[in-house]
Amino acid sequence: MADNVYRVTELVGSSQSSLDEAIRGAVRRASSTLREVSWFEVSEIRGHVEDGDLAHFQVTVKVGFTLEDTKE
Amino acid sequence: MADNVYRVTELVGSSQSSLDEAIRGAVRRASSTLREVSWFEVSEIRGHVEDGDLAHFQVTVKVGFTLEDTKE
Amino acid sequence: MADNVYRVTELVGSSQSSLDEAIRGAVRRASSTLREVSWFEVSEIRGHVEDGDLAHFQVTVKVGFTLEDTKE
Amino acid sequence: MADNVYRVTELVGSSQSSLDEAIRGAVRRASSTLREVSWFEVSEIRGHVEDGDLAHFQVTVKVGFTLEDTKE
Amino acid sequence: MADNVYRVTELVGSSQSSLDEAIRGAVRRASSTLREVSWFEVSEIRGHVEDGDLAHFQVTVKVGFTLEDTKE
Amino acid sequence: MADNVYRVTELVGSSQSSLDEAIRGAVRRASSTLREVSWFEVSEIRGHVEDGDLAHFQVTVKVGFTLEDTKE
Amino acid sequence: MADNVYRVTELVGSSQSSLDEAIRGAVRRASSTLREVSWFEVSEIRGHVEDGDLAHFQVTVKVGFTLEDTKE
Amino acid sequence: MADNVYRVTELVGSSQSSLDEAIRGAVRRASSTLREVSWFEVSEIRGHVEDGDLAHFQVTVKVGFTLEDTKE
Amino acid sequence: MADNVYRVTELVGSSQSSLDEAIRGAVRRASSTLREVSWFEVSEIRGHVEDGDLAHFQVTVKVGFTLEDTKE
Amino acid sequence: MADNVYRVTELVGSSQSSLDEAIRGAVRRASSTLREVSWFEVSEIRGHVEDGDLAHFQVTVKVGFTLEDTKE
Amino acid sequence: MADNVYRVTELVGSSQSSLDEAIRGAVRRASSTLREVSWFEVSEIRGHVEDGDLAHFQVTVKVGFTLEDTKE
Amino acid sequence: MADNVYRVTELVGSSQSSLDEAIRGAVRRASSTLREVSWFEVSEIRGHVEDGDLAHFQVTVKVGFTLEDTKE
Repeated sequence: MADNVYRVTELVGSSQSSLDEAIRGAVRRASSTLREVSWFEVSEIRGHVEDGDLAHFQVTVKVGFTLEDTKE
Repeated sequence: MADNVYRVTELVGSSQSSLDEAIRGAVRRASSTLREVSWFEVSEIRGHVEDGDLAHFQVTVKVGFTLEDTKE
Repeated sequence: MADNVYRVTELVGSSQSSLDEAIRGAVRRASSTLREVSWFEVSEIRGHVEDGDLAHFQVTVKVGFTLEDTKE
Repeated sequence: MADNVYRVTELVGSSQSSLDEAIRGAVRRASSTLREVSWFEVSEIRGHVEDGDLAHFQVTVKVGFTLEDTKE
Repeated sequence: MADNVYRVTELVGSSQSSLDEAIRGAVRRASSTLREVSWFEVSEIRGHVEDGDLAHFQVTVKVGFTLEDTKE
Repeated sequence: MADNVYRVTELVGSSQSSLDEAIRGAVRRASSTLREVSWFEVSEIRGHVEDGDLAHFQVTVKVGFTLEDTKE
Repeated sequence: MADNVYRVTELVGSSQSSLDEAIRGAVRRASSTLREVSWFEVSEIRGHVEDGDLAHFQVTVKVGFTLEDTKE
Repeated sequence: MADNVYRVTELVGSSQSSLDEAIRGAVRRASSTLREVSWFEVSEIRGHVEDGDLAHFQVTVKVGFTLEDTKE
Repeated sequence: MADNVYRVTELVGSSQSSLDEAIRGAVRRASSTLREVSWFEVSEIRGHVEDGDLAHFQVTVKVGFTLEDTKE
Repeated sequence: MADNVYRVTELVGSSQSSLDEAIRGAVRRASSTLREVSWFEVSEIRGHVEDGDLAHFQVTVKVGFTLEDTKE
Repeated sequence: MADNVYRVTELVGSSQSSLDEAIRGAVRRASSTLREVSWFEVSEIRGHVEDGDLAHFQVTVKVGFTLEDTKE
Repeated sequence: MADNVYRVTELVGSSQSSLDEAIRGAVRRASSTLREVSWFEVSEIRGHVEDGDLAHFQVTVKVGFTLEDTKE
């Protein structure tokens, strides 16, 4: 394995149903435009409340991917 | 939009079933006595273990709400 | 209640399905070899991504248990 | 000076004009309902953006006040 | 055990004699107005100096208590 | 409201005059190339000193914006 | 002095009387099973409240000891 | 550029008018006795409240300066 | 000097030989696609272990660069 | 009250008997050479272990004092 | 890949020559008694000074390894 | 061993070649003016980039030394 360089980008996934889905949403969105996404790390969990109930979970996720050679 | 002031109160929701339900429980409890609850932020995730299995998730949640004019 | 001493050990549970199951896995594994496990605390949430989707949740969990008298 | 007990409450002041005014707003609001407010500490600085410009500064402020004897 | 909700309030106890007494003072003061106080956590240790000697220990303590059903 | 995904990018605004202007500069710069910028969070306040006086405030700001569908 | 390797283990000492005794309890317990314990570091101070008064101080202590050659 | 060594000293600037002036005050005071002050970093924002209004902003500032050869 | 805006991007450099080379790798990679890279800050040091020995150092590095006028 | 500037210096007090005495020792030592010491803040609690028992508490204390006009 | 559980243990490697060697020392020592060590994370960098020069680098390293089925 | 008091001072060492040399530079510089320097702790790792390559490592180091009796 060569000495790779990875990049980390920060996304916030939101979901009305669960923390898990908020994280999955962020990971899938990152993977739709970035190749070689390989790990994530949760850095913050927040959310919105509407009409007395939890409306959205919002999870901040750092996503890491391998940088290819010609373009960051 | 005027220059509002919000207040933040800290609750711990607990649930035998999931992190999501522990958070929802804290948000609903706050909303039962406070009007205008609008956001939350998770600050700690802990729990109890009994008889070798997870008994309760306990999630510390900061809940923010708009202060009305006459009473804090 | 006497002045007990507890010990804290750090585990990482992983699950393909949910954060909850990753935490439960770590708690059960700790309880399989340690008696008197009584609480846990989540210190980090990470995971792996494969083929554009979330492959594993990995949750770092500190687990506390009562130390018995003759052996740490 | 006796051994007093103080209480800390957390507010978020907002202002369209400046960080200073957001903090002042939170301090004044706390003082309108609490006697003996004596110090504050900034714990977070955030804000909203609308139409490409900064719309509100939002400063989270912990406010400390002396507890009187009969009521928290 | 049902899925309770707890609330956390932050107090600062002060004492001329010791850290222990500053913490005890904050816990007792909280218990004088709140029922069901069950745990505390120290978040900051500070103090005043006068005439070249330590005048007061000031310990910031987060105190947790069970929320009863009708009133926060 | 659907389950959106947001992205967070980190900028450092600088200003010779004030913290407020350093933050505004970063927010405006982000908005000049990114649509749908909606919030910011200050993560660090630093600056340069020249000839015995403050020369620049430098404020690190995380800026969040909604991801549109076709391009990150 | 050779290039030693040390290990760090985390304990929670509890005491009804003082922070000092809670720390000493953790250090003595570690020393009863581990040789060459040489330093400690406090990472958290918590406790239990019962009947309106402080029941136990609980101090989380990281304890460091020299690893001997044949066994971790 | 040679391999310099810098020193960091911590000051608290106070101002009745603004955060900016509290920071400037600390930077100027440092520069009045130290040569070659070149950067600062804000580590804490606090203040005093008197008679229901903000009396002083107090900003803790770490100030860095080049160490000259003969004297720290 | 005008009131510039900088951007910060996060990379992870890896190296089989040293921490220094992992950092250099991340800095060089950033500079290959970004003009005006001017500073970096290390935020995390991790690595992989294979066959009982350290296989890769992985250093997370935040890299700051001046934003030019027409393109983020 | 004018807009004062304070300085913060960091000391480590040690004591064989208690945390309180370690803190008092640091405060008194600071006051023996610095005039106008007015507050302290504990930033770290560590200690040494010898022969299976706690030998010294070591408490890192930040001490703040008013800067007089002619000399830092 | 099944849902594994990993354990994390904390070691301090020391070296007279370099940070890299201190980390390698801790990783090798862990691998000498634990099978399946797979990653590490640096949590603290400290050291000793003797006779005016750096005597030892001391690097605290968290080491993660796969738990096998019968024994923690 | 008596109950000593230590002082901590913060320096930034810089080096074109390595992290190790930046740390050594700070430690040696501290030792050139302070007697009884006995430990250090790294609190930040940063650096400068010039012409697309790493120009200087800059390591912030807290250095502790025993206070002698007559002078801080």
